Amino acid sequence: MTGAMIYDQLTVGSLIDHAARFHAGTEVVSVETSGEVARSNWGEVSANARRLASALNRLGVAEGARVGTIAWNNRRHLEIYFGVASAGRVTHTINPRLTPEQIAYIANHAGDEVLMFDTTFLPLVAPIRTHLDSVKHLILLGPRDQVSASKIDGLLFYDELLEQGDPDYQWPDIDERSPAAMCYTSGTTGNPKGVQYSHRSIVLHSIAGNQPDGLAVSARDSVMPVVPMFHVNAWGAPYIAAQVGARLVLPGPDLHGDSLARLIDAEGVTLSLGVPTIWMGLLAGLQETGATAATMTRTVVGGAALPPSMIAAFRDKYGVDLIHAWGMTETSPLGTLNQLLQKHEHLSAEEQAKVRMGQGRPPWGVDLRIVDDEGARLPHDGVTQGSLQIRGHWIVERYYGQPDSALTPDGWFDTGDIATIDPDGYMIIRDRAKDIIKSGGEWISTVELENIAIACPGIANAAAIAAYHPKWDERPVVIAVRAEGADITEADLLDFYDGKVAKWQIPDRVVFVDALPSGATGKILKNRLREAYRNVLTETA
Amino acid sequence: MTGAMIYDQLTVGSLIDHAARFHAGTEVVSVETSGEVARSNWGEVSANARRLASALNRLGVAEGARVGTIAWNNRRHLEIYFGVASAGRVTHTINPRLTPEQIAYIANHAGDEVLMFDTTFLPLVAPIRTHLDSVKHLILLGPRDQVSASKIDGLLFYDELLEQGDPDYQWPDIDERSPAAMCYTSGTTGNPKGVQYSHRSIVLHSIAGNQPDGLAVSARDSVMPVVPMFHVNAWGAPYIAAQVGARLVLPGPDLHGDSLARLIDAEGVTLSLGVPTIWMGLLAGLQETGATAATMTRTVVGGAALPPSMIAAFRDKYGVDLIHAWGMTETSPLGTLNQLLQKHEHLSAEEQAKVRMGQGRPPWGVDLRIVDDEGARLPHDGVTQGSLQIRGHWIVERYYGQPDSALTPDGWFDTGDIATIDPDGYMIIRDRAKDIIKSGGEWISTVELENIAIACPGIANAAAIAAYHPKWDERPVVIAVRAEGADITEADLLDFYDGKVAKWQIPDRVVFVDALPSGATGKILKNRLREAYRNVLTETA
Ligand SMILES: Nc1ncnc2c1ncn2[C@@H]1O[C@H](COP(=O)(O)OP(=O)(O)OP(=O)(O)O)[C@@H](O)[C@H]1O
Ligand SMILES: Nc1ncnc2c1ncn2[C@@H]1O[C@H](COP(=O)(O)OP(=O)(O)OP(=O)(O)O)[C@@H](O)[C@H]1O
Ligand SMILES: [Mg+2]
Ligand SMILES: [Mg+2]
Repeated sequence: MTGAMIYDQLTVGSLIDHAARFHAGTEVVSVETSGEVARSNWGEVSANARRLASALNRLGVAEGARVGTIAWNNRRHLEIYFGVASAGRVTHTINPRLTPEQIAYIANHAGDEVLMFDTTFLPLVAPIRTHLDSVKHLILLGPRDQVSASKIDGLLFYDELLEQGDPDYQWPDIDERSPAAMCYTSGTTGNPKGVQYSHRSIVLHSIAGNQPDGLAVSARDSVMPVVPMFHVNAWGAPYIAAQVGARLVLPGPDLHGDSLARLIDAEGVTLSLGVPTIWMGLLAGLQETGATAATMTRTVVGGAALPPSMIAAFRDKYGVDLIHAWGMTETSPLGTLNQLLQKHEHLSAEEQAKVRMGQGRPPWGVDLRIVDDEGARLPHDGVTQGSLQIRGHWIVERYYGQPDSALTPDGWFDTGDIATIDPDGYMIIRDRAKDIIKSGGEWISTVELENIAIACPGIANAAAIAAYHPKWDERPVVIAVRAEGADITEADLLDFYDGKVAKWQIPDRVVFVDALPSGATGKILKNRLREAYRNVLTETA
Repeated sequence: MTGAMIYDQLTVGSLIDHAARFHAGTEVVSVETSGEVARSNWGEVSANARRLASALNRLGVAEGARVGTIAWNNRRHLEIYFGVASAGRVTHTINPRLTPEQIAYIANHAGDEVLMFDTTFLPLVAPIRTHLDSVKHLILLGPRDQVSASKIDGLLFYDELLEQGDPDYQWPDIDERSPAAMCYTSGTTGNPKGVQYSHRSIVLHSIAGNQPDGLAVSARDSVMPVVPMFHVNAWGAPYIAAQVGARLVLPGPDLHGDSLARLIDAEGVTLSLGVPTIWMGLLAGLQETGATAATMTRTVVGGAALPPSMIAAFRDKYGVDLIHAWGMTETSPLGTLNQLLQKHEHLSAEEQAKVRMGQGRPPWGVDLRIVDDEGARLPHDGVTQGSLQIRGHWIVERYYGQPDSALTPDGWFDTGDIATIDPDGYMIIRDRAKDIIKSGGEWISTVELENIAIACPGIANAAAIAAYHPKWDERPVVIAVRAEGADITEADLLDFYDGKVAKWQIPDRVVFVDALPSGATGKILKNRLREAYRNVLTETA
């Protein structure tokens, strides 16, 4: 008789229920695949999520079944997020930029029983239909149309299913540790690996990741996740928006800078989230369209290294705070966010920008450490580099379909990133472990070499890689793309490194190419470059 | 092999661990019982919490044992919060304003094995020592002093215990559903009842209650909880401050308006929390001292009805946002907080203040409803009044030492408050069920009658109660205290009601008294007034 508190499960359903109860009229703006702007709200999203759940029941889709999606950021995708998970099934978001073979591989690996996709992806799905071994139902996200129906036998239509669904369907009881969503890694360094998020991990990520020093979304925000809903759940933004009753602006298929710039002004976006390349485009788009982004106060940027000039570009011209974040598919993804401490408040804007360039510090709920090759802890002194490891409530323990733990014997997940951590917990990614160049036993960061190359006039893009060297084992080589019309030479770029890094870190060679290979989330595939240019120093020697 | 996320328990220990790892140097300012200002930090608080835990081990205090405290808001009390719970024991904070008999009753009811207290409370504790049946160890919060030692046989001294403690003591494994802290209700309407918070409920309350639309504490804040640490865990502020690494300013024993005003300016407080009476004092103190409260941006006010003028008083003169909140011991306590929605942003300051006068809306994690006497749901139309019920992750299920659930058969906790809820979830407390006046079948809110009386020139304080009436069953009577030097009459006050409420709601009588009886948390004890004046209308008739 010690007394007790109510013990409720932490569920995805509780997020949409909160939005439906207390924010039913708050808008969800959705750019459709047609380009039209549709206006829904949390009340309708909730009702449609329930309709969908009951329709899947009627189709006989079992509890625990994986439901694949290939879709843009739009209202139907949002309804699926909540309707699938709250009824005990698993939303499996698939990246449409993968090759058809990879998509079939992933859908089969996950054992998807349903595949729902936007009209855009009909030409992608139809040819691989026969290779989707576990898929029993294909559902097009829209009203019935005869042209599409003729392309795939037995194709179902989302809007039709919903018409027959029950808007008052009651979510079943859910064990908070059961899976709610899954996502595969980007495949930048190898084959994509599946991560299955539990109801509990999603809810804890949503509330702990939305502290004032986290994404900090309130009911007064209009949040535009440009990061795709197939990329680690759009970093949790849909769940968080439901949890706090924020207005959502889902940008649909067109992510060009000018379209985004117009959308921001038209819809009064206050906060947006996305990868650096998207924001490079947005900055150009703002310039082009003359959009002022007057309502936007902050933008969260992560997923890849941040170009050093981006913070000032957003701050000085648009008054937008850039919040740098780091994470992985395996970390739900929020691992660190860069928000200042009290002691930084009196620094100048430039000094603050220097702090904010790093990947930030972890919120409560995750812990970080760096270790050496033997797994021994290294000091958090801001200088010592080591393998970054993480643990916490929303970190993967075991990949999907793998019998073994993904953790070290003492329970940490090794990120594959090389980082420093300072005494306040500010972490800086120095490189990927697979990318870093080991020259005569010393490490050279490819990120640093690339940042310098990109800052060099005449260079549009660059990747630094390790090439084989008979004496030093590895030496840096830069693979660079010239800016349009530029005629910069190898010698020019190598000169540009002078004084910016230690002499022994200056690359041995520059190779100019027309384009760099990139993967499904837009990251440069350095393993491809390493394969191609591994012997470039010995061949030409 | 469906894949899994790391499953860690949600523990109070994880909050202090986060603060110690990532915010070790962040200050904890503590006004000591001596009046001196001591400066600690999260690193030291963590080390001392571990020292305390190991010292209690050495004393043989078992896991699960209740550890009572009678203490101000200061650093040692903070160390106890974390050191007791993280090691699997239960912090039981006791209100020193209770009578000695009540304190003995509560300590015995909780079965406290240890009692720790500030020097201030030695004269309170020494005489009841022999009545504290379960207490094995009495610990004075300070260094050894002979005078105190001579007052209580076997008295231990906190600082001495800590000197022998282990600053690197490792927290044991904790089940998140086990108890971490407990608190008794204020005893405004009857005997205090014990509520035992679990590790899980405290952590969920801390992260869900600190959303941008909640307390919104960041690492850049200097938080001053004026609400006592013995009053529902200072509304969670100590846990939240640890979770985000905020700077804490603990005001100690002197809560006079002028002292608080000076402390705010001296320590750069950005956010404070407390009950309305404290803020009435603070407003006077700011005026007196000329303190500008320039750093303070917001203040959270709750625990009792808000005087209507308070929002404007803070806003216009000091630029401080007043955030009205409602909660109970049984709700950890955050039940609702008044933060605006997007649709309120374009309202004038006056119109916004009107919205903000109410008790606010619930964060994710709790749900509200109002019901009639038969338990049937009433509409959320902002007009219909009903019994307020609540459920969620940090709501009591069963009182301490009680065999039966405290919930309705369908799982809701009845608050004892009468409220309206509007379609956006904004809740307004109209009265306590026990206080509301039932006149001829119609309800009259005592809160409304009191607000009018207090706004009347010449009136310092007032309470409205139901007195017995032969025809209407109950009729309103106002018990009022004249302002110093005022000579306002009964007729004057009754005239003042004219046009402010419906004719039939105007009180039947005014009785002037020198002071109103108040309980341990400063609330007016209306049950005492009802007892005293129940027959005032028939006696004088
Ligand atoms: N802010 C950032 N700065 C630098 N790198 C980042 C940042 N955010 C994420 N990354 C990189 O992205 C990685 C996580 O990306 P993701 O989970 O999408 O798949 P991936 O690691 O690219 O692919 P795979 O694991 O399949 O090779 C991190 O390990 C890190 O290397
Ligand atoms: N913002 C507020 N406005 C009006 N009343 C409030 C507010 N906040 C809290 N209260 C009142 O305080 C009550 C909770 O107080 P607490 O838990 O301290 O004990 P109590 O209810 O006063 O005492 P007991 O339950 O022992 O009679 C609520 O039920 C409500 O009546
Ligand atoms: Mg990876
Ligand atoms: Mg009560």
